[in-house]
Amino acid sequence: MTTKTALVVSAHSADFVWRCGGAIALHAEKGYQVTVICLSYGERGESAKLWRQPGMTMDRVKTSREAEAKKAAALLGVHDIQFWDLGDYPINLTEAAFFRLVDVYRAIHPAFMLTHSKEDLYNHDHPTVSAWAQNARITAQAHGHNPGQKVLGAPPVFLFEPHQPEQCNWKPDVLLDIGSVWAKKRAAIEAMEGQEHLWEYYTRVAQQRGAQAARNSDKKITWGEGYQSVFPHVVESLA
Amino acid sequence: MTTKTALVVSAHSADFVWRCGGAIALHAEKGYQVTVICLSYGERGESAKLWRQPGMTMDRVKTSREAEAKKAAALLGVHDIQFWDLGDYPINLTEAAFFRLVDVYRAIHPAFMLTHSKEDLYNHDHPTVSAWAQNARITAQAHGHNPGQKVLGAPPVFLFEPHQPEQCNWKPDVLLDIGSVWAKKRAAIEAMEGQEHLWEYYTRVAQQRGAQAARNSDKKITWGEGYQSVFPHVVESLA
Amino acid sequence: MTTKTALVVSAHSADFVWRCGGAIALHAEKGYQVTVICLSYGERGESAKLWRQPGMTMDRVKTSREAEAKKAAALLGVHDIQFWDLGDYPINLTEAAFFRLVDVYRAIHPAFMLTHSKEDLYNHDHPTVSAWAQNARITAQAHGHNPGQKVLGAPPVFLFEPHQPEQCNWKPDVLLDIGSVWAKKRAAIEAMEGQEHLWEYYTRVAQQRGAQAARNSDKKITWGEGYQSVFPHVVESLA
Amino acid sequence: MTTKTALVVSAHSADFVWRCGGAIALHAEKGYQVTVICLSYGERGESAKLWRQPGMTMDRVKTSREAEAKKAAALLGVHDIQFWDLGDYPINLTEAAFFRLVDVYRAIHPAFMLTHSKEDLYNHDHPTVSAWAQNARITAQAHGHNPGQKVLGAPPVFLFEPHQPEQCNWKPDVLLDIGSVWAKKRAAIEAMEGQEHLWEYYTRVAQQRGAQAARNSDKKITWGEGYQSVFPHVVESLA
Amino acid sequence: MTTKTALVVSAHSADFVWRCGGAIALHAEKGYQVTVICLSYGERGESAKLWRQPGMTMDRVKTSREAEAKKAAALLGVHDIQFWDLGDYPINLTEAAFFRLVDVYRAIHPAFMLTHSKEDLYNHDHPTVSAWAQNARITAQAHGHNPGQKVLGAPPVFLFEPHQPEQCNWKPDVLLDIGSVWAKKRAAIEAMEGQEHLWEYYTRVAQQRGAQAARNSDKKITWGEGYQSVFPHVVESLA
Amino acid sequence: MTTKTALVVSAHSADFVWRCGGAIALHAEKGYQVTVICLSYGERGESAKLWRQPGMTMDRVKTSREAEAKKAAALLGVHDIQFWDLGDYPINLTEAAFFRLVDVYRAIHPAFMLTHSKEDLYNHDHPTVSAWAQNARITAQAHGHNPGQKVLGAPPVFLFEPHQPEQCNWKPDVLLDIGSVWAKKRAAIEAMEGQEHLWEYYTRVAQQRGAQAARNSDKKITWGEGYQSVFPHVVESLA
Repeated sequence: MTTKTALVVSAHSADFVWRCGGAIALHAEKGYQVTVICLSYGERGESAKLWRQPGMTMDRVKTSREAEAKKAAALLGVHDIQFWDLGDYPINLTEAAFFRLVDVYRAIHPAFMLTHSKEDLYNHDHPTVSAWAQNARITAQAHGHNPGQKVLGAPPVFLFEPHQPEQCNWKPDVLLDIGSVWAKKRAAIEAMEGQEHLWEYYTRVAQQRGAQAARNSDKKITWGEGYQSVFPHVVESLA
Repeated sequence: MTTKTALVVSAHSADFVWRCGGAIALHAEKGYQVTVICLSYGERGESAKLWRQPGMTMDRVKTSREAEAKKAAALLGVHDIQFWDLGDYPINLTEAAFFRLVDVYRAIHPAFMLTHSKEDLYNHDHPTVSAWAQNARITAQAHGHNPGQKVLGAPPVFLFEPHQPEQCNWKPDVLLDIGSVWAKKRAAIEAMEGQEHLWEYYTRVAQQRGAQAARNSDKKITWGEGYQSVFPHVVESLA
Repeated sequence: MTTKTALVVSAHSADFVWRCGGAIALHAEKGYQVTVICLSYGERGESAKLWRQPGMTMDRVKTSREAEAKKAAALLGVHDIQFWDLGDYPINLTEAAFFRLVDVYRAIHPAFMLTHSKEDLYNHDHPTVSAWAQNARITAQAHGHNPGQKVLGAPPVFLFEPHQPEQCNWKPDVLLDIGSVWAKKRAAIEAMEGQEHLWEYYTRVAQQRGAQAARNSDKKITWGEGYQSVFPHVVESLA
Repeated sequence: MTTKTALVVSAHSADFVWRCGGAIALHAEKGYQVTVICLSYGERGESAKLWRQPGMTMDRVKTSREAEAKKAAALLGVHDIQFWDLGDYPINLTEAAFFRLVDVYRAIHPAFMLTHSKEDLYNHDHPTVSAWAQNARITAQAHGHNPGQKVLGAPPVFLFEPHQPEQCNWKPDVLLDIGSVWAKKRAAIEAMEGQEHLWEYYTRVAQQRGAQAARNSDKKITWGEGYQSVFPHVVESLA
Repeated sequence: MTTKTALVVSAHSADFVWRCGGAIALHAEKGYQVTVICLSYGERGESAKLWRQPGMTMDRVKTSREAEAKKAAALLGVHDIQFWDLGDYPINLTEAAFFRLVDVYRAIHPAFMLTHSKEDLYNHDHPTVSAWAQNARITAQAHGHNPGQKVLGAPPVFLFEPHQPEQCNWKPDVLLDIGSVWAKKRAAIEAMEGQEHLWEYYTRVAQQRGAQAARNSDKKITWGEGYQSVFPHVVESLA
Repeated sequence: MTTKTALVVSAHSADFVWRCGGAIALHAEKGYQVTVICLSYGERGESAKLWRQPGMTMDRVKTSREAEAKKAAALLGVHDIQFWDLGDYPINLTEAAFFRLVDVYRAIHPAFMLTHSKEDLYNHDHPTVSAWAQNARITAQAHGHNPGQKVLGAPPVFLFEPHQPEQCNWKPDVLLDIGSVWAKKRAAIEAMEGQEHLWEYYTRVAQQRGAQAARNSDKKITWGEGYQSVFPHVVESLA
């Protein structure tokens, strides 16, 4: 495979924007084909503003959420965005969806994979998805699963930032400079019209992570994203 | 400064060999000037074999340990090895030594720094040195310390592997491929004649870390060293 | 809603007595309507004394356990006690029960909620119930669940004390003075005739937590209960 | 019951060899009847070498894995090895299998029980089995489960070593001297023909654990196995 | 004592502003007399901007830092601010200073006490001061220290927010609404002319903690400060 | 050496009674010679009742505390009790005292060693002593310390129970049945006349640890003590 790829597994249709929009845009610019799986629309638990409109229905919420997510994905340069409509609060992670995700891993062989934090006190769907998506990655590595297909290697997994990081025992060990694509991420954030109350919150998150990245390096960095690595980094140099 | 440098702060004169000999040799080959500070000779606590010889004296132990360490350093390509003779079991970390270490940071501006683990149930000198050496790094960053000197930036700190990693709550998040310099590390290990009982032990450590590095990547790696990062990695790409 | 309410989710029918009987009685006296959900009777795993009687049957165990729990609830001033009979060891937390619990949250809008610890080496039902009950709380917060109902706010969650606290990595950060209602709690404890071996054990627990509460304040406190908070405390003063 | 017994619950058919072959052989020599439950053959996820053979089928993989495991079990002195064929990657832990395991606990009343670590980043089946097998142990302790049977006491549970111990947050607090049975364990390891790449890896693990056991005692120990205890040790002496 | 008091122990002269300026102003408005101890001026490690001025001297830095801190203290309503001039990077916590701090505890009997986090990778002075100030609190509780004086009770200790919270393993369990005094805190922040690069950073911190406080309660909160409690909360109600 | 020995290092003169009186009495009965080092009398921080007497002086407090401790030691069968009078709150652990403790290790070669917990929020002397006493143990193992003396082996270290175990992150992994010597421990507790308020508290601790020991084994145990092991247990059997 000559084209490099990356995979994002997002519980609800907006998570990929707030939590790793910068990484997506950055790698898209580097030529990576980024696939984003939105397992649900967040139609029940993350669409409060829509539900305050009179006469709202579940279908209209989903339609609206999908449109927003597609717009954001286009702004970020996402190669493929998929909506699996598994429901939310709680999410229903079926066996069929599990093997569908295994198939995605086998189909694209991502260079790295992004998903939710291991814990989230405020959102049970997030850690459930994280464990499940990592489990599917392991099945994709099994030689006896669909023998004949090329098995998955060992793509690193990075857990993106939850809404209240300390409460979720999430600790970033990787800080990504997203300054060159911040304008794209901000545009994608603004595409999330149903969650306008989060725009400034996540803009400030990017500023704080940027300032921390600058402090942890000798570089001028203004905008950042934090990630927690699941696996050790295998390197050829410490500098 | 055009030459790249690295700093190793080692409690006893052999620690740098077992714990980061591969990193030293690897970076020396890449052109780094590596400075190794041996704060003591490990003359009391890590020279059992020598003390079993009849008529042994403290001076003879130190002389022997220094010779071994110098031989190993030469094999690894160390640029500068210093023996500060601060005593061991327990080590005596004086204020003068503290500012001497600050001066070293300021003099060489290392690209990265290696020292002991945060905890070590078996060796009180190790964690004491680790905290102290990191503290000196922070003083070297202070603009008001020797104003006029160029202040230290933010070189990453990596904690090398203690003798019994799990008992020391040490967890490697960086695995370094040292295959290309393994022969040098093994030769340096064999230079430690007073601790022959550790030769095979640390050879096996390198094999296990190598196998783990292979498993965590898609690469053929046979020999490795593990490190625990103190600070987050600031990166420009996740792949 | 003018009446204040509280919710207790208890895996087995006696847990609410040992673990939070003081909190129930105290808040009942303050005018709170406390709802207790007993998800099972503990009929298999926590009724050893009953099973030692000749000719015992599952129905008789359940009947006996329900009678004891009702008697204790009355003594503590419980407003509403419900027995959901989901089985124990292992408990069977059905989807229907999940949404029934969501309905309870929506119906009473508790000011706070009490449930089991996050871990329990000795009792798999306890942590399973804890995670499940907290998950239901999150669904009750979702605007898209039964749109039109008033969504749940953010009631604090407190995890009550397991049988062997250190082994369960449970750490109390809240100590409640239950001196004024201790007599009621002791009476409720004695209503648990099938578990007489625990009466003195939990009396001592109350004494130890009371002594610790006194030590952590400048107050005379004799009887206490410990709780572990799930969420940060939002306060208007630190004193 | 006059014969002493022990129970090993292994996710895949080779785990019991690498991870606790020494403990099995040692206790078999002491007269313990050791029962090993292989919940799956590891036919999908741990049989890469077999799947590289042309024309391989699932049935042939299972047959081969069972033959290897039986051979190893015989070499170790296993009393009873059972293959439950529940599938792997992911394993399918059915309710029927749960109660079958409860029955095993009740039937043999093991003096101790061995299973997987609590976490394993590389293998989702391992921690899933560990929690499940411990849960079955708790049900076997319930007086109301199959009343009339003798209930299980409180056999200690030891978690054996995962492939990458630090990454799994596994920490050994028990080191077992397996020197007297090492030859048997090595022979059993070599019976695992399909995983020859692991022979030397686990031989080195045994050497490192042996060296650590020697260091933590005043004994000559060469070969060891590490275990993490789940429950506190109840003792009559500290020496 | 009828006047309520509070104590802040700050390693460097600006810490009390960024980290707990809101708590100071809030409690000052409630009538608390707040004493702030600045153990050093942060003259070496936290005065980079000043040191960039030509001809700067240590005395001029200290004078400037003291003036800024006094101005901020006045804006926040601090009752008593003391400068102990113990040096920084590293701080020199003398025995005399220790007993001087014990005297302060005994003199004012604070209702609560604020100091630094337990860990801080970026600043060794912070955790050193935190442990030392808590140790002095314990000596102030000892009946045999200056017998005849009234001993200190058990004032709660809150650890304020370090610069990079996750890296310091600092986790807020108390969120304080500082909306009513935010204007004062912002003015005090702007009094720190030598650290202008931090003004916006800590303004954003206040916004994020405010948003989190709102999310963890049912209240409208815009500006907040986070604290980590050292001791359990002794309470008379859970609501 | 044919007589078995044990060492207890206690920060204050009563700690050995509350925290490990049972272990002392039990091993004394088994023929162990137990040495107890009381580093201070707890004369300032743990003698509140004495200081409430009119005209009390430091000397009288020390005399009274020494008498109580000697009486308790006799009741427990202590072989040698030493009072080093190093002061308390805070304790002053001198270099001379350090090497004196090294000499004790070398003189008695204890089969095991008991000291304080690693953390104690309420008592800074306790963790300070624990780390220091373990450090001395390591120096006693060094071949180059007083060459010619027999070096110390690897005696296990057990940390006894602090006053508020969960707050100190202390977790018992060893539960010792002290039923056969409980009467002696209770008598020793009552010898601590100056701390009568703790008699019942520590009696209840023994009952709770006894009940927990019973639950974790299949034995009838009524009175217990809990310990946290520092090093892994090296064993020859898992049962």
